[in-house]
Amino acid sequence: HCSSFPLSGHEGAGIVESVGEGVTSMKPGDKVIPLCVPQCGKCSFCLNPESNFCQKSQQDTRSLCKGKQIHHFLWVSTFAEYTVVPEYAVAKIDAAAPLDKVCLFSCGFSTGYGSAINQAKVKPGSTCAVFGLGGVGLSVIIGCKVAGASRIIAVDINKDKFAKAKQLGATDCINPQDFKKPIQEVLTEMTGQGVDYSFEAIGKAETMVAALASCNMSTGVCVMIGELDSGSEISINPTLLLTGRTWKGSVLGGWKMRECIPKLVSSYLEKKFNPDLLITHTLPFDKVNEGFELLRTGKSIRTVLLF
Amino acid sequence: HCSSFPLSGHEGAGIVESVGEGVTSMKPGDKVIPLCVPQCGKCSFCLNPESNFCQKSQQDTRSLCKGKQIHHFLWVSTFAEYTVVPEYAVAKIDAAAPLDKVCLFSCGFSTGYGSAINQAKVKPGSTCAVFGLGGVGLSVIIGCKVAGASRIIAVDINKDKFAKAKQLGATDCINPQDFKKPIQEVLTEMTGQGVDYSFEAIGKAETMVAALASCNMSTGVCVMIGELDSGSEISINPTLLLTGRTWKGSVLGGWKMRECIPKLVSSYLEKKFNPDLLITHTLPFDKVNEGFELLRTGKSIRTVLLF
Repeated sequence: HCSSFPLSGHEGAGIVESVGEGVTSMKPGDKVIPLCVPQCGKCSFCLNPESNFCQKSQQDTRSLCKGKQIHHFLWVSTFAEYTVVPEYAVAKIDAAAPLDKVCLFSCGFSTGYGSAINQAKVKPGSTCAVFGLGGVGLSVIIGCKVAGASRIIAVDINKDKFAKAKQLGATDCINPQDFKKPIQEVLTEMTGQGVDYSFEAIGKAETMVAALASCNMSTGVCVMIGELDSGSEISINPTLLLTGRTWKGSVLGGWKMRECIPKLVSSYLEKKFNPDLLITHTLPFDKVNEGFELLRTGKSIRTVLLF
Repeated sequence: HCSSFPLSGHEGAGIVESVGEGVTSMKPGDKVIPLCVPQCGKCSFCLNPESNFCQKSQQDTRSLCKGKQIHHFLWVSTFAEYTVVPEYAVAKIDAAAPLDKVCLFSCGFSTGYGSAINQAKVKPGSTCAVFGLGGVGLSVIIGCKVAGASRIIAVDINKDKFAKAKQLGATDCINPQDFKKPIQEVLTEMTGQGVDYSFEAIGKAETMVAALASCNMSTGVCVMIGELDSGSEISINPTLLLTGRTWKGSVLGGWKMRECIPKLVSSYLEKKFNPDLLITHTLPFDKVNEGFELLRTGKSIRTVLLF
């Protein structure tokens, strides 16, 4: 069983230890990824081919231990050597998949990669701007590159992240603190009329608005991924949208996880992309606090914990 | 020459009186519609099949009379018996088209209809909510019906508009003042999880946010059409977008006017839709002030002025 940072206990991969009555899609020994956005397959969202939400999973609570209900963290609770999950909240993956790598597919990588592929639907030859170079933002860059973008502009105030961004496909890296004018004006000048696609993978009001204003006024698409504190609001001039821009968000990159994560893992095994580069540290679980420290100090993109 | 309300001098249709040197696409006697969003055909927006903006038209000024530059109103200035426009800012239409009807195609009808067809891309069997039952909102209803929506919910605080909305295709008409709870909650309850597509054709901050919240959290699309006062801002909780909604705007319903308006006029002549129902009054130009009064008192959807 493996788990990775950040979102403690949220990303994970493991092996089926035993199955309950009626479970038919997996057996002990199978490699699996727990799904933070499962698909019951029966609700109106699951039956809609364009939605990856599930109404049932929003309501589910799980009896984890000795019949006592234990609350779970973001649906998966992967900081545990053993966990109990409903069949529909687990995806069986290729037996050849390395668990200490594909645990990233349970959220961070799939979210960023899918934001480029499914939400923005990045086209070959297009220009992209990615705000925030954490694990999600870097995964957006991987997605933009796989989709054939000709220019990928990485934006972050921490220059230490630029080398990794370039390694993954960024063609330009810029630090907003290096400019006097707002970063949306810098990006508009760099690209003539603004980028085709922009992505916000930070979760700050000002970068959400800057990302929207950075894409071109007529056909630009801005995908929101970062989350603000609950209840916070952002203020925009609606003219940004009225000229033709599209502003959208997505949950987990738009993937129907149970159906799509196994296919993503297979594409990884076929070397279509390489999120291994996002893993900066691998630690045994008893060094979990060392992992948190790496996260707190910004020294880690993803730290994988081995159980 | 004909012109219609509102946006005085903005919608129009006329006949070519004479052409300048080098004009090849039309000749005296041709029926035409002046384009408030022309296509020069050469700029990067015009060359982009998904954009209907034109960079040249943003910069153009026209020498209207005796070599003296006269400023124009919203590009077209149709409150005039004669006007001078560049060739690329005029679309030649079918000779059988009635000018006192198709003048609506130069903005209001095309904007609303195209918002449903091009921007939302309404699918057969879907549910729609249209906020605001002026000429644009009613044209959205026409578009939703042509696209095959199975439920079209019209929203307005003026019940006098409901009869026309139903005549054009609305299946339900609701007045937010009849409910204690916010209209987005009413619409969500009426449809289970929110409408598939919502449209804001009013131009108020509160209805823009209500329209966004009225479409379903996972795959809902909200199209903004109404315009706020210049410089005004609106405040939203970004969670509305982060769960998967799409928020977008459009200029003139996304049509590349020069190419598409003649086709729309032909479809009208083939009786694919009937925006004639939007025309509540027709007046000679010397009664223009009577027309403004009809507009001010909300008694007219569109008043056509005959020159």
